[in-house]
Amino acid sequence: MKKSVGIIGANGYTGSELVRLLAFHPNTELKFLFSRSNSGVKISELYPDLDSICDLVLTNEISETDILFLCLPHKESQNWLNENPVSEETLVIDLGNDFRLGGNFGNRNFVYGLPEIYFNEIQNSKSIANPGCFATAIQLALLPLAKENLLKDIYTTGITGSTGAGQSLQPTTHFTWRNDNISAYKTLNHQHVDEILKQVNLLNDKEVELNFVPWRGDFARGIFTSSIIECHLDLEKIYTLYKDFYKDSLVVKVSEKPIDMKQVVNTNFCVIQIEKQGNKIAVHSAIDNLLKGASGQAVQNMNIANGWEQNLGLNLKSIAF
Amino acid sequence: MKKSVGIIGANGYTGSELVRLLAFHPNTELKFLFSRSNSGVKISELYPDLDSICDLVLTNEISETDILFLCLPHKESQNWLNENPVSEETLVIDLGNDFRLGGNFGNRNFVYGLPEIYFNEIQNSKSIANPGCFATAIQLALLPLAKENLLKDIYTTGITGSTGAGQSLQPTTHFTWRNDNISAYKTLNHQHVDEILKQVNLLNDKEVELNFVPWRGDFARGIFTSSIIECHLDLEKIYTLYKDFYKDSLVVKVSEKPIDMKQVVNTNFCVIQIEKQGNKIAVHSAIDNLLKGASGQAVQNMNIANGWEQNLGLNLKSIAF
Amino acid sequence: MKKSVGIIGANGYTGSELVRLLAFHPNTELKFLFSRSNSGVKISELYPDLDSICDLVLTNEISETDILFLCLPHKESQNWLNENPVSEETLVIDLGNDFRLGGNFGNRNFVYGLPEIYFNEIQNSKSIANPGCFATAIQLALLPLAKENLLKDIYTTGITGSTGAGQSLQPTTHFTWRNDNISAYKTLNHQHVDEILKQVNLLNDKEVELNFVPWRGDFARGIFTSSIIECHLDLEKIYTLYKDFYKDSLVVKVSEKPIDMKQVVNTNFCVIQIEKQGNKIAVHSAIDNLLKGASGQAVQNMNIANGWEQNLGLNLKSIAF
Amino acid sequence: MKKSVGIIGANGYTGSELVRLLAFHPNTELKFLFSRSNSGVKISELYPDLDSICDLVLTNEISETDILFLCLPHKESQNWLNENPVSEETLVIDLGNDFRLGGNFGNRNFVYGLPEIYFNEIQNSKSIANPGCFATAIQLALLPLAKENLLKDIYTTGITGSTGAGQSLQPTTHFTWRNDNISAYKTLNHQHVDEILKQVNLLNDKEVELNFVPWRGDFARGIFTSSIIECHLDLEKIYTLYKDFYKDSLVVKVSEKPIDMKQVVNTNFCVIQIEKQGNKIAVHSAIDNLLKGASGQAVQNMNIANGWEQNLGLNLKSIAF
Repeated sequence: MKKSVGIIGANGYTGSELVRLLAFHPNTELKFLFSRSNSGVKISELYPDLDSICDLVLTNEISETDILFLCLPHKESQNWLNENPVSEETLVIDLGNDFRLGGNFGNRNFVYGLPEIYFNEIQNSKSIANPGCFATAIQLALLPLAKENLLKDIYTTGITGSTGAGQSLQPTTHFTWRNDNISAYKTLNHQHVDEILKQVNLLNDKEVELNFVPWRGDFARGIFTSSIIECHLDLEKIYTLYKDFYKDSLVVKVSEKPIDMKQVVNTNFCVIQIEKQGNKIAVHSAIDNLLKGASGQAVQNMNIANGWEQNLGLNLKSIAF
Repeated sequence: MKKSVGIIGANGYTGSELVRLLAFHPNTELKFLFSRSNSGVKISELYPDLDSICDLVLTNEISETDILFLCLPHKESQNWLNENPVSEETLVIDLGNDFRLGGNFGNRNFVYGLPEIYFNEIQNSKSIANPGCFATAIQLALLPLAKENLLKDIYTTGITGSTGAGQSLQPTTHFTWRNDNISAYKTLNHQHVDEILKQVNLLNDKEVELNFVPWRGDFARGIFTSSIIECHLDLEKIYTLYKDFYKDSLVVKVSEKPIDMKQVVNTNFCVIQIEKQGNKIAVHSAIDNLLKGASGQAVQNMNIANGWEQNLGLNLKSIAF
Repeated sequence: MKKSVGIIGANGYTGSELVRLLAFHPNTELKFLFSRSNSGVKISELYPDLDSICDLVLTNEISETDILFLCLPHKESQNWLNENPVSEETLVIDLGNDFRLGGNFGNRNFVYGLPEIYFNEIQNSKSIANPGCFATAIQLALLPLAKENLLKDIYTTGITGSTGAGQSLQPTTHFTWRNDNISAYKTLNHQHVDEILKQVNLLNDKEVELNFVPWRGDFARGIFTSSIIECHLDLEKIYTLYKDFYKDSLVVKVSEKPIDMKQVVNTNFCVIQIEKQGNKIAVHSAIDNLLKGASGQAVQNMNIANGWEQNLGLNLKSIAF
Repeated sequence: MKKSVGIIGANGYTGSELVRLLAFHPNTELKFLFSRSNSGVKISELYPDLDSICDLVLTNEISETDILFLCLPHKESQNWLNENPVSEETLVIDLGNDFRLGGNFGNRNFVYGLPEIYFNEIQNSKSIANPGCFATAIQLALLPLAKENLLKDIYTTGITGSTGAGQSLQPTTHFTWRNDNISAYKTLNHQHVDEILKQVNLLNDKEVELNFVPWRGDFARGIFTSSIIECHLDLEKIYTLYKDFYKDSLVVKVSEKPIDMKQVVNTNFCVIQIEKQGNKIAVHSAIDNLLKGASGQAVQNMNIANGWEQNLGLNLKSIAF
């Protein structure tokens, strides 16, 4: 029997992307799509690509489901849970950042939903804090080094598509401004830094610093990051270490050839490449910010928590070109 | 048991797009990928997004398969069939334009593979000529009028993504030139005009003219067309007629709201909208040129010819944004 | 001595583009930039590219100037002139559509500011109605035929950059939506149709129809149009006719080779190409919508009305690539 | 009287961009455009935007000129000078990288053509090595720190438009691949690193390292860079230091507000912004790679070497949007 699913905040980008994924998922059934602002409107009115795919009407009423995704603005998940009691049996996956640094909500202990390190914990959990998009791309590039105690201070630049800024109309998402343009934001101060450092410093003996400059890119989907780190190992040994770390992963691919962002756009994959000069390495990583960086990873977590194959419903055709 | 598939010309865009689709298709198994120029190379070396999805090596040897896709440059399919005898039992789907205007090859009578009008013929066929990309988008916009004998002379502009020009490096596919640029090509002289007119004039009593100006767009995937036609029917009646024509279609969606190209990019859907002023209507249509305009439609035809559900393996997540 | 200039609505795209042009114009001096909504703000705060180019502060006070440009939303120029008496000596150039179809304002008789047909009238005028962007691109493609009485019904598709929609944040100018997307708007119903028909029907004996479908393009600057028209002349003769018509033009270039939009982006040029099949021709034209389609043409008109060389201050380096 | 100019390699991007600039320059006259591969072809055939701007025919014959620009592939300038003796009176400006690290050619001692530090040397020189594009953007961001002995190890990411890769058709400049894509190249190994380090280490007491990862961007023009450096000064003091350093510059603008790349595209400006967190600063800089990063800077150098105002012919209208 299929598990029932509710999505809170289904009218946003990550919410609607969950609808796209779950509409074709073999083991789930969408029961309700909650949206305060668009209640009464069909989801396919907001996102016409969903026409004939999902004909649910957005609602402001909640019913009990096996699985609940929270796709709310950051810091609103906790309020929502306060105001809307959820059964202990329900698997809650929060796509906001309320519980990413840990923390409980009543009896719920949120597990950090990065399956590449917390697969076992996710399997037994009813409460999952889905990682941030940059946090996913950057951590996956660093974890193999951290696990071997090889991580030192990190200098990272990352670039993100406009979907990362959501659907609200802003000067920095105005087509005329953003087209063919590059700019920096939240320089050395992005909210994902703490999330990343928490995880890598748990593994690495020596505490490290992350100096991260995020850029706005002139494309809609995707994240590409390059991290420079001091490292005295041979490149070949570094690759061995990365390939070992990800040897069982169905999602992270370690490449010895040049990678590009578009090879993972519209998929749940992460691809990583490493280059070396002198005693410095650069680790490049790329994901789709809405999939492995948000809704795809949420489905991956849902699969694992239910004991299903982790890529169920995630065999997505890449955009490729 | 799965049907075996061979792809001739698997190294090109339509060939590799078939690989992306068939890698996840439940009823088929890729047996060989033929490429003269890239024989010995893994398909995933050419298209790194296919890494871990398809690990076949391109070959210049052919073996017998249940299904054979020809993804050759236009006018080379016939030569290929001459040089490479294919069992009569094999379903041959030609993505080139050799047989689109009809014509036999030995005992093979090629059916025109537009399922929206030739569903029955495709069901019993072993030889299918897959329509052209613009031909698909424009015909689907015109057929309901032609069927009712309402079609008059047509004035169409269509715009196509760069993937329509294939993977060869040309001045008009140089990023520096094409980015933010629009240009016309094959003005009033595109090879798909005959293909379109043949079909619409079969249905429409009065023979009509198609004046078609194709444009190169500054995007990779997609086709958008607008056709202006004299029409004295009420818009409401026109919509009734279109909706009737496509009432059983799982692929063509008739919309009374504004459509945009991206709502069908990375899917096998076609979306159509009609607007009217005075005695003129404009019919807009949009498809993904590589999917409903090529490889997706080829898979749809394969499904129908095999008696499978026509959308099998074609439940694709749209790029959406 | 330099002529003084005031700009009403200087905070918008056409207003700021005028600032860019006039900041380097040898015969003018910017005296004030009027903006109700941004009064007190430096223009370079709104448009940082103007930093060190123009340090004027937007004001809501008006003083007398030799030249006044109105860059207001459509239909607001007339109101503005009602509320703000302007000296009869002042050259008023209206970039809105209030006076494009003719009409007086008090003693002011507005001349239609298309220098390619009204050069003489513009020379003696104090009141100029600057043409619309699509109106300019399409008329320049049609006028030589109209003058020879060769114009018949016209079927036009045109595509415009996002700057045509101004700086207001709208769903259709949201980067995520517009990037890689094409859509139609105001189908067969664009406000420039009347403006175009008025001019071409003045020249052509037989009244013609214009069926025009405008598209939104995924670029910021530029317009490209293709018009299909019945024409029984040889292509060579048509070219002779076009080249004669524009033989003295410093702005319109007639090309026998393929044209592309980007060759005129960031310039005041218009480029035109003609192709023929059977008894139909397609006339392609391209301009920069903010320059020859708005502020560049306004400066050209200002030059002519002042008896200056018409390209003064308009020798702009093209973006080229 | 105007100075005569010859351009060697006028058929490439930097060569044709020089033509665009010099066609409107008040003190120069283009005498010949040398191109071996396109000899006999009008420059406006290759670059149609130059039609009616420059009607010179590319030639393979050389005559004496006051000024000579070398726009050859890297490492070919020296060969060219060997084979083509140039009068000692001729001002030679080399846009290649043959002489950027110093070096003589016969009696010619090449000055490094970064006017922001070598203005005086350029004034008296007949031989100028024009800096690289990334080298210009990154140095201008670092020099004020180096001059104060404050520079420490540098971690830089920079992104460049496709024009940086020239006009040759390559897989990485194929529109289909590059559109909406990001990738790294020459990681930690770009040829401009030595050029940058030579200059900054001349100023800074302590030798520093530059760890530079260049990215390919999905736009045609522009460079944006972010450099992370340890710095214990207050942000206010850092800004004072930068503003002092550039107080006489007509080209470099120091901004305390967020900058974006497009504000300098199609201009000869460089814009710089600094941000600080803890003991780390990030210095952002942006230029147009073909102007301040190549041909614009070459004209600036020409102006200075001739004793003309340095921005002569460089008052370019920005693309702005």
